[in-house]
Amino acid sequence: MSESDFARRLAAIGGRVEERIAAVLNRPPAPEPLRRAMQYAALGGGKRLRPALLAAAAQDPDFESAAALDAACALECVHCYSLVHDDLPCMDAAAVRRGKPSCHAAYGEALALLAGDCLHSLAFEIIAGSGLPPEAGGVLARAAGGGGMGGGQCLDLAAAAPDEPALRQIHEMKTGALFDCALQLGLMCRAQTPPPEEKTRMRRFAAAFGALFQIVNDIHGAAADAALGKTTYATVLGENEAARRADAARDEAISILGGEYPFLAGAAGWARDA
Amino acid sequence: MSESDFARRLAAIGGRVEERIAAVLNRPPAPEPLRRAMQYAALGGGKRLRPALLAAAAQDPDFESAAALDAACALECVHCYSLVHDDLPCMDAAAVRRGKPSCHAAYGEALALLAGDCLHSLAFEIIAGSGLPPEAGGVLARAAGGGGMGGGQCLDLAAAAPDEPALRQIHEMKTGALFDCALQLGLMCRAQTPPPEEKTRMRRFAAAFGALFQIVNDIHGAAADAALGKTTYATVLGENEAARRADAARDEAISILGGEYPFLAGAAGWARDA
Repeated sequence: MSESDFARRLAAIGGRVEERIAAVLNRPPAPEPLRRAMQYAALGGGKRLRPALLAAAAQDPDFESAAALDAACALECVHCYSLVHDDLPCMDAAAVRRGKPSCHAAYGEALALLAGDCLHSLAFEIIAGSGLPPEAGGVLARAAGGGGMGGGQCLDLAAAAPDEPALRQIHEMKTGALFDCALQLGLMCRAQTPPPEEKTRMRRFAAAFGALFQIVNDIHGAAADAALGKTTYATVLGENEAARRADAARDEAISILGGEYPFLAGAAGWARDA
Repeated sequence: MSESDFARRLAAIGGRVEERIAAVLNRPPAPEPLRRAMQYAALGGGKRLRPALLAAAAQDPDFESAAALDAACALECVHCYSLVHDDLPCMDAAAVRRGKPSCHAAYGEALALLAGDCLHSLAFEIIAGSGLPPEAGGVLARAAGGGGMGGGQCLDLAAAAPDEPALRQIHEMKTGALFDCALQLGLMCRAQTPPPEEKTRMRRFAAAFGALFQIVNDIHGAAADAALGKTTYATVLGENEAARRADAARDEAISILGGEYPFLAGAAGWARDA
């Protein structure tokens, strides 16, 4: 699949995810200010890349399976909750997110904290109602928790000037764990249980894709990060070497797919040039 | 069951829950400072009242069922995470919890926020691995989220001087939802599915027990709350009327049980005199 085909498909998936999360957020009896903060944090922004990876691993690019769409929305709620908490003054103190005021800048710290917490709970409410087996909730919880995303955020906070191996560990946990989770959940959504080799292959793809995603992210942020004195792949490797590594990670990700999964190959091409 | 029998049983249940959460927290690969903050927040304190209610509804007071113990530990992790976040400077700004420095006072705000988040995820990891059906995770997620505990905390923050009906709504969500969840999860842990009337009965007991718990809590905090200008049942009703309401809630809770569930009747007596 070409990058532009992937981009079109990503937009369509984003629309489905947006619509489903909006419907769920209209339903529960959350008090009005909290519901508005949750909507602000979860809707109207975000590329929905994790849902797209899930759909690809499920071999269900149109979300014909309601379970796959629910799993994707649950995963996206975890991602959105983490952005709200990461932006808080005691963490990254980010006043802007996706070109808008961050959630606490718009709603105040207390409501933003609660909105993040309630999106976190909502993720597990959605996945519990998806029809998937309980293990799906376990896969999501492990990816989100202390051994995954939450642990990565802790390492990120603790490391003043990480070297390359430390950076790799931070990002494998902080962002890689949710990419891996997207693919593992996707495999669980297939009508037929895939052979164990597929799980291994998706795991390897997730690792290469996660490295690719982060290196490209750091290349784009290089000027701003350098001004802040932040250590990233771009500052550690230099821009030329970072670009070379990004190419290598994309090529590795695509080669792991062995000519199958054109949708994931498209995602890797898209992520390199995003 | 007498109050002192209940208190003895509660201590035994607390020991089992402590041991199980400690084992789970020793296992996952959370980075060291995060794991320590999670241990600090979840271990070595807490009456484990919600696990006791769960065990009572499961008719399994010794946690012979590993699923019931896991469900109780998951619920307790949700409770502990909520205390950490409620104590944060942007919420109740409490420097002390259970006679010790609160989690952020001991570990800093960023690590406390993350420890709360990771206990929240851990709760759903534990319940997903309990062997209970996915609905158990859904029951826990709904109780924790915007229509339950999280929503109640939002109402509590928003209400400057709530009247009695507003207080009732706040506490039904903020504390009542987890009591109700304890009893519903307990019913799900029984070897034989109980008849639907039991669900209704447990729901009614939870409402009366929640009111009892909160009124007694407010009676104990009356002097401190009055000094802070905080509106509670004790300040709205006056201490004599609050004491009368607490007696009435205890009597109602016991009468709902209709002579069955001596363990829950003991809990109601204990909560009145706690």
